[in-house]
Amino acid sequence: MSSAIDKVSAQIDANRAGVIQRLADAVAIPSVSGDAAHRPQVIQMAQWMAKSLEGVGCENIKFKELGKQTLDGQEVSLPPVVFADYREGKADAKKTVLVYGHYDVQPALKSDGWNTEPFKLEYDEKTGRLYGRGSTDDKGPVIGWINMLEAHRQAGVELPVNLKFVFEGMEESGSVGLDELIAHEHAQGSFFKGVDACCISDNYWLGTKKPCLTHGLRGVAYFKLHISGPAADLHSGLFGGVVHEPMTDLFAIMSKLVTPQGDILIPGIKELVTPLTDEEFKRYQVMDFSVQDMEGATGSKTTIADDKEKILMARMRYPSLSLHGIEGAFSEAGTKTVIPAKIVGKFSLRLVPDMTPAKVNELVEAYINAEWKKLGSKNTLRLEAEHGGKPWLADPNHWNYEAAAKAVQKIYGVAPDYTREGGSIPVALTFAETLGKNLLLLPLGRADDGAHSTNEKIDVSNYVEGSKLLGAYLHEIAAATA
Amino acid sequence: MSSAIDKVSAQIDANRAGVIQRLADAVAIPSVSGDAAHRPQVIQMAQWMAKSLEGVGCENIKFKELGKQTLDGQEVSLPPVVFADYREGKADAKKTVLVYGHYDVQPALKSDGWNTEPFKLEYDEKTGRLYGRGSTDDKGPVIGWINMLEAHRQAGVELPVNLKFVFEGMEESGSVGLDELIAHEHAQGSFFKGVDACCISDNYWLGTKKPCLTHGLRGVAYFKLHISGPAADLHSGLFGGVVHEPMTDLFAIMSKLVTPQGDILIPGIKELVTPLTDEEFKRYQVMDFSVQDMEGATGSKTTIADDKEKILMARMRYPSLSLHGIEGAFSEAGTKTVIPAKIVGKFSLRLVPDMTPAKVNELVEAYINAEWKKLGSKNTLRLEAEHGGKPWLADPNHWNYEAAAKAVQKIYGVAPDYTREGGSIPVALTFAETLGKNLLLLPLGRADDGAHSTNEKIDVSNYVEGSKLLGAYLHEIAAATA
Repeated sequence: MSSAIDKVSAQIDANRAGVIQRLADAVAIPSVSGDAAHRPQVIQMAQWMAKSLEGVGCENIKFKELGKQTLDGQEVSLPPVVFADYREGKADAKKTVLVYGHYDVQPALKSDGWNTEPFKLEYDEKTGRLYGRGSTDDKGPVIGWINMLEAHRQAGVELPVNLKFVFEGMEESGSVGLDELIAHEHAQGSFFKGVDACCISDNYWLGTKKPCLTHGLRGVAYFKLHISGPAADLHSGLFGGVVHEPMTDLFAIMSKLVTPQGDILIPGIKELVTPLTDEEFKRYQVMDFSVQDMEGATGSKTTIADDKEKILMARMRYPSLSLHGIEGAFSEAGTKTVIPAKIVGKFSLRLVPDMTPAKVNELVEAYINAEWKKLGSKNTLRLEAEHGGKPWLADPNHWNYEAAAKAVQKIYGVAPDYTREGGSIPVALTFAETLGKNLLLLPLGRADDGAHSTNEKIDVSNYVEGSKLLGAYLHEIAAATA
Repeated sequence: MSSAIDKVSAQIDANRAGVIQRLADAVAIPSVSGDAAHRPQVIQMAQWMAKSLEGVGCENIKFKELGKQTLDGQEVSLPPVVFADYREGKADAKKTVLVYGHYDVQPALKSDGWNTEPFKLEYDEKTGRLYGRGSTDDKGPVIGWINMLEAHRQAGVELPVNLKFVFEGMEESGSVGLDELIAHEHAQGSFFKGVDACCISDNYWLGTKKPCLTHGLRGVAYFKLHISGPAADLHSGLFGGVVHEPMTDLFAIMSKLVTPQGDILIPGIKELVTPLTDEEFKRYQVMDFSVQDMEGATGSKTTIADDKEKILMARMRYPSLSLHGIEGAFSEAGTKTVIPAKIVGKFSLRLVPDMTPAKVNELVEAYINAEWKKLGSKNTLRLEAEHGGKPWLADPNHWNYEAAAKAVQKIYGVAPDYTREGGSIPVALTFAETLGKNLLLLPLGRADDGAHSTNEKIDVSNYVEGSKLLGAYLHEIAAATA
């Protein structure tokens, strides 16, 4: 097996100029899904994907159409989800891995602050970086799979697993229609049939030096706290001190949700959190991360904890509660003396196992109702639970992760960090829940790649070694499950 | 004297059609000071004022020019302040009363929700109301002085006091330049020389039935609480629980300023408030006001106190603290999961004797600094004290008030309420402080006149009886100070 991986890796090295050109070709198509004017380019990118997949031996390539949407005031076609199979040899005896990625990108204008043309891949030899919109999010990783397949064929190495590709073109714009498509296809039992594990390469290393495998995501529960009283906004001169002010009530309630140290004050929340094990704690200890990394990321010395493990656990394995703002209050510059009559306070919790939006809603509602009664206000309160998303946690001891870890060791010479992310990747939860299979997040890029920002980049080493890593991962799966 | 008042009143009754027409002529000039396109009409209204004052025997009429301003992107002339004297007979032996009013109005469009053309005075015979922009704020009261002078001359009754008129055209737009003009004229010692008392008719009865004399206004101290932490807004998924969030800190601090029952929690504030006397408490007991009036005014049952006196005292004689809003937080519709990095919380206190902005600033700063230390946050706090205005309180036992009370009794057959207002009228404070003379607020209109709103009105009885009241007031001054 090692020899097979080496051959493929050597071939990728030999193809270095070609794989960079392939990424350049993809970056040159401005597949911005959020802008109706760019919709033809998004669809052009879908065609480019299909052609590239076909070129490296994929079969059963299909455009799954999602219908139309209204965007920027016009009705436009949704870009298709591209399905493809890769099978060769005794395919029925092999494991099958479902791979998800997206071929659309965030908007970018040079005038936003880019140093180079965003839709022209620029290689900076001094830094070894490839700049361009989509270089790391998510064209680089998506093309990594194509590079890997190409190298197998050129090197005459058979791929020891089957692949099923799902590449969408709406990820940066809410993945419109994707959940329904996955549910529909799963119910039909055709394309997703036989999938043994899933892999998504659409996140980032924790830092800039050490690869990681990501096996968890926090969920979210978002709340709107409506407080209303007077029929219309009042003048604080005429009515200050006379009426119960909705703002005073809102501050009283929302100040009782979380402490400045981040401790959630809602009874029952902490009890839902899965206890920390020694095995898990060790993962934080070995992670390539420092207090200074966090200070760099926030541009400030406002980190609550003073040690690495606590910071990592605060992001990855504990819930949090953030106050986002108030709708209906005075929010402009200046000094208006208004008593807002009807306001909506907004806050959300990030959820970790075993919290669910349903359980959290129950606890939040009970607590807020109890605190509200204590206030003795004549105003009216209504709590609205908005969208919720469950947390996701995969078993990092599954063969899917073991194979990826061995591949990292093989390509990078180090054991990967096992990270969890603080945010949400809804499609990961959708695949994991719908298919009921182990899912691996296998990032290729680094923390400082600047996805969604100006001057997005992928280091050429991450791109090239990453392409090798994807191949090695599949060989290690075959070995681990042989 | 009673005979003189009766003669003048009878003359005003005889002039009823004429005084209504005079108000109609004034309302027909859309002297909207806040709109550059209407500036010529504001200046036209100044000319109308000068001509009207001249027509009833005023002399020494001057346009005090205030220079230029930039409004709606264009440089326009500020409307002049109109000065005028009224003196006759043995003027040097008479008391001199300074009268302030304004001839500009708020904007109004029929499409805002007016039932009639806002700049065409409409008399509704059924309700006895005169509808039109400026009818009550402040053209009606200002013209009341002119009606009263006209009636004196027609009835052959000598005015027993001297008058000095100051009518401005920028009251609805910040009184630009007025304070400086008053200070300058006072320093020069010319126009304001010899003023014994001041009278402003630019506020309203407490309710709709009983006239009042207003002898106090609350001041204001406005604060901006700046809290900053991270260099830029952060994603709550990635950073929630990791950093000290400025919003959490802001809610912690601002929730400690005032209770839902309106009690100010800043130590030392309550101690500054002048104690309540029996004499003052009796004023609240007799006031024409009910809990239902307040519920009508706020369109809600959110009044903190359940009895009339407490409600009135909360508005008139006690300080209040209102939270207005947050600049820099998420304030739009929707569900953004942002950790705002730099926010400004805004709140203000209404001040009563013996609070001053300076003393209040000191107490607020000390308290917030102490509370901030308790939080243990690594974020940065800065308190900014914005504009402050002192409270104003006049002696209601002064002859200026005694005369007005007798005039109310004479014209309306009731003793007036002695009210204080919760808001500020900066020009009242300016006159009272600059001239050092007793100042009376003598409202003609009712609480429900809808100044600044659609369908602004003055009841024809308030307008006609009010014109009589102004004359009676001046005769009572002469009698009281003879």
